[in-house]
Amino acid sequence: SRSIDLAVIPGDGIGREVVAQGLKVLSAVLPQDVKLQTQEYDLGAKRWHATGETLPDAELERLKGHDAILLGAIGDPSVPSGVLERGLLLKLRFAFDHYVNLRPSKLFPNTETPLAGRPEIDFVVVREGTEGPYTGNGGSLRTGTPAEVATEVSVNTAYGVERVVRYAYEQAKARPRKRLTLVHKNNVLVHAGHLWKNIFDRVGEEYPEVTTDYLHVDAATIFFVTRPERFDVIVTDNLFGDILTDLAAAVTGGIGLAASGNINPTGAFPSMFEPVHGSAPDIAGTGKADPTATILSVALMLRHLGLESEATRIEDAVSADLAERSAPRTTDEIGDALAARVAG
Amino acid sequence: SRSIDLAVIPGDGIGREVVAQGLKVLSAVLPQDVKLQTQEYDLGAKRWHATGETLPDAELERLKGHDAILLGAIGDPSVPSGVLERGLLLKLRFAFDHYVNLRPSKLFPNTETPLAGRPEIDFVVVREGTEGPYTGNGGSLRTGTPAEVATEVSVNTAYGVERVVRYAYEQAKARPRKRLTLVHKNNVLVHAGHLWKNIFDRVGEEYPEVTTDYLHVDAATIFFVTRPERFDVIVTDNLFGDILTDLAAAVTGGIGLAASGNINPTGAFPSMFEPVHGSAPDIAGTGKADPTATILSVALMLRHLGLESEATRIEDAVSADLAERSAPRTTDEIGDALAARVAG
Ligand SMILES: CC(C)[C@H](C(=O)O)[C@@H](O)C(=O)O
Ligand SMILES: CC(C)[C@H](C(=O)O)[C@@H](O)C(=O)O
Repeated sequence: SRSIDLAVIPGDGIGREVVAQGLKVLSAVLPQDVKLQTQEYDLGAKRWHATGETLPDAELERLKGHDAILLGAIGDPSVPSGVLERGLLLKLRFAFDHYVNLRPSKLFPNTETPLAGRPEIDFVVVREGTEGPYTGNGGSLRTGTPAEVATEVSVNTAYGVERVVRYAYEQAKARPRKRLTLVHKNNVLVHAGHLWKNIFDRVGEEYPEVTTDYLHVDAATIFFVTRPERFDVIVTDNLFGDILTDLAAAVTGGIGLAASGNINPTGAFPSMFEPVHGSAPDIAGTGKADPTATILSVALMLRHLGLESEATRIEDAVSADLAERSAPRTTDEIGDALAARVAG
Repeated sequence: SRSIDLAVIPGDGIGREVVAQGLKVLSAVLPQDVKLQTQEYDLGAKRWHATGETLPDAELERLKGHDAILLGAIGDPSVPSGVLERGLLLKLRFAFDHYVNLRPSKLFPNTETPLAGRPEIDFVVVREGTEGPYTGNGGSLRTGTPAEVATEVSVNTAYGVERVVRYAYEQAKARPRKRLTLVHKNNVLVHAGHLWKNIFDRVGEEYPEVTTDYLHVDAATIFFVTRPERFDVIVTDNLFGDILTDLAAAVTGGIGLAASGNINPTGAFPSMFEPVHGSAPDIAGTGKADPTATILSVALMLRHLGLESEATRIEDAVSADLAERSAPRTTDEIGDALAARVAG
């Protein structure tokens, strides 16, 4: 008999509400013989205000022992920008070497898109998660004076780029269209850009069945709104991936549906699953938060843990649910509806 | 009697075609007493292939003597990525200290937008042009080996940020809505981000009439497609500005209409005006290139040179022309139509 030992970080704002629905659907979809055990971690704005801690080493150590992590959302306007992002969210991604940030984008039936003509959108962004401009390298000199100089260093290694590019080729190979696009800005960021492009081309030789192309990030944003159907799998760096996946969420019915997995494919550390959206403190407690992104993140988690058919069941339930919905529903009602579908 | 001594860099691909129309409209709009003198510079892919030169120092020196520069487009697939961008286009922007990259976005009547519901779009992006990740700082170690490390350093100075932020406040102050949005990613790029935010807030104290807000770049891309009408003036760094202005062009009828000015507001060096689009070698010579972006760039140039009413006349002509157009037209026909309008 199998078991899942899950760490749960509800976090801030709507985080707790959406995570509750994620767990509801998870319980409903799991076969009887899979034992689910959850442990909640109190991390986020409240803890930081109370203790000044973002992610103590002891907590990080305990988190390591779980099979996976489900995270709601982190962040609150009362905390200075960067403190929780760098001290908690990014610390987890880096400490657990989540080098794949997997973010599928699909235009589900009956959802609103700002794009005219409802193009068919079904692609996945493989965003690098442990390098690029997110490393925290850099600093500031003469801070706060008219002579200040602040730098941010994007660090890119062959080691780091190759592993995520290889993962992206594997994803592309497994999909019907077998198409992979590298997005970077190698006409300006020539050092990092050429590293990415060279590795992309070299690894590609091992995947003759995958069709590839390259786009500058600025051109890619144009295609996201004019021809999103052209994309199948996209691989890109940490910062470009951040920007592109929010844009992708916007054109596919909004941030309420965008799921993500921070994945360490080697299994050396637990992977972490979270909605792309933030803590949305303005709607916390109102029942307006859409838990679908979290529930779809649970599906990504199940796939990562080898429970493919359960993952698909959740995704199919979301498709069917969206296709049939009419009136606005509360967070809880959406969770109930999806739990009923996956159990049924 | 006034005169304009203009340097013209047609460049590659459709560059020459669109520049010809820009000059046609420029001649038509100028009052009799303004003498126009142009000098063409042979720079771009062809020259690089022939001589290996991108922008020799002697040419740079000669360019300095002009009142302004009109550039068509630079780039060709036969030239390795980065060579002409860094060696010519960015070299000009940096050498002439074009710290303001001004890019207006307007949804003109009767143009196609991929956005449903045709929101009202009329904003301007003030993109920093001489700092950030575009400085060329960084490098690559053990290039081409499995142990390669490539870095890109974003350099940001109080000096550089303050001057462009101040320019943006002036722009906002002069517009009816008087609204300025800073776009950055200060929750991750904390050093550069906090420098930008602190200066933005401090300079803002001198502009009590301007309403301000801050958006992370990922959130900004969402609003570009869901609520573009919320933007008035945006100020942002070099790389975010590159990405956002292509997206802005896409939602406001395409890259064929997007104008830009690389401006040195002090007048110490000539400013340079160019369409946002590239050299589009696939349609070069077919008469399909839309010269409107170049013609609108000429309007920005005239405004910069103090010829405000001539600038407005071109912009009004473009509005009227787009509103009345029906059949597809050639590059030349569009140029003729606009020249006739501004002259009439
Ligand atoms: C909150 C922030 C640090 C984070 C990121 O930039 O990665 C978020 O925008 C995301 O996309 O998960
Ligand atoms: C060609 C390239 C160097 C340039 C840039 O990145 O600035 C272009 O994309 C632009 O926006 O003018």
